[in-house]
Amino acid sequence: MIERIEHIAIAVEHLDSAIDTWISLLGCDRSAVTIHEVPSEKVRAAFIPVGQTKIELLEPLGDDGPIAKFLSKSGEGMHHIALSTDGVEAETERVTALGLKPLGEPSAGAGGKKIVFLHPRQTSRVLVEFVEPGAAH
Amino acid sequence: MIERIEHIAIAVEHLDSAIDTWISLLGCDRSAVTIHEVPSEKVRAAFIPVGQTKIELLEPLGDDGPIAKFLSKSGEGMHHIALSTDGVEAETERVTALGLKPLGEPSAGAGGKKIVFLHPRQTSRVLVEFVEPGAAH
Repeated sequence: MIERIEHIAIAVEHLDSAIDTWISLLGCDRSAVTIHEVPSEKVRAAFIPVGQTKIELLEPLGDDGPIAKFLSKSGEGMHHIALSTDGVEAETERVTALGLKPLGEPSAGAGGKKIVFLHPRQTSRVLVEFVEPGAAH
Repeated sequence: MIERIEHIAIAVEHLDSAIDTWISLLGCDRSAVTIHEVPSEKVRAAFIPVGQTKIELLEPLGDDGPIAKFLSKSGEGMHHIALSTDGVEAETERVTALGLKPLGEPSAGAGGKKIVFLHPRQTSRVLVEFVEPGAAH
């Protein structure tokens, strides 16, 4: 079951200045921000809470990860929406039966949470992630 | 004060099929969807609740509104993020003092709610909207 939007991810060139901008915009304190490195995705990610969801800012680590490629093709901007579910496998199976296409198998994302992405072709060209809370954040 | 993410807006070519896709993905019922025409913005908008926020699907009315132009330039995809606040004017004044730039004066958006957009140049190329609940939805 999809419970809520876990985060909205934005690709940025410079994480520190993007954090400054977004905490100013949201009117929150830098102490609310958590930062994770996700070497498997070659990104450094900052999470800023907003109500029940979060803004995730993604800065590339190196030149060849998915966020580096996204920035080089499209520049900064919205990258994906993550939907929170208590069962990534079950949800992936459910939407696969409806014709949506997972991009690979569930794996560990930021904070060790189980995640999977869906191909954006079927979802209005929006990259959607399922994320399963539970692992330490 | 920014309270929560009110909605995430996605530009789509065909509203009805996009609604089908997104309610399938989210696992919710079509009865949960509300549809508004916003002639001032030349769009038809469908709102699908997800926890405390909503997915907004935007289909252009005619060929010359902002969503028609967005689709013709970029194709379908994420269009903007709306942040809920109890005071659009106060919040706009606050962020203007921080160097962000409102795109015009607050006006009436979907459901008669008071809205204003901010120039995306200062916000990681993400178009951000402030929206003030209160008017009938």
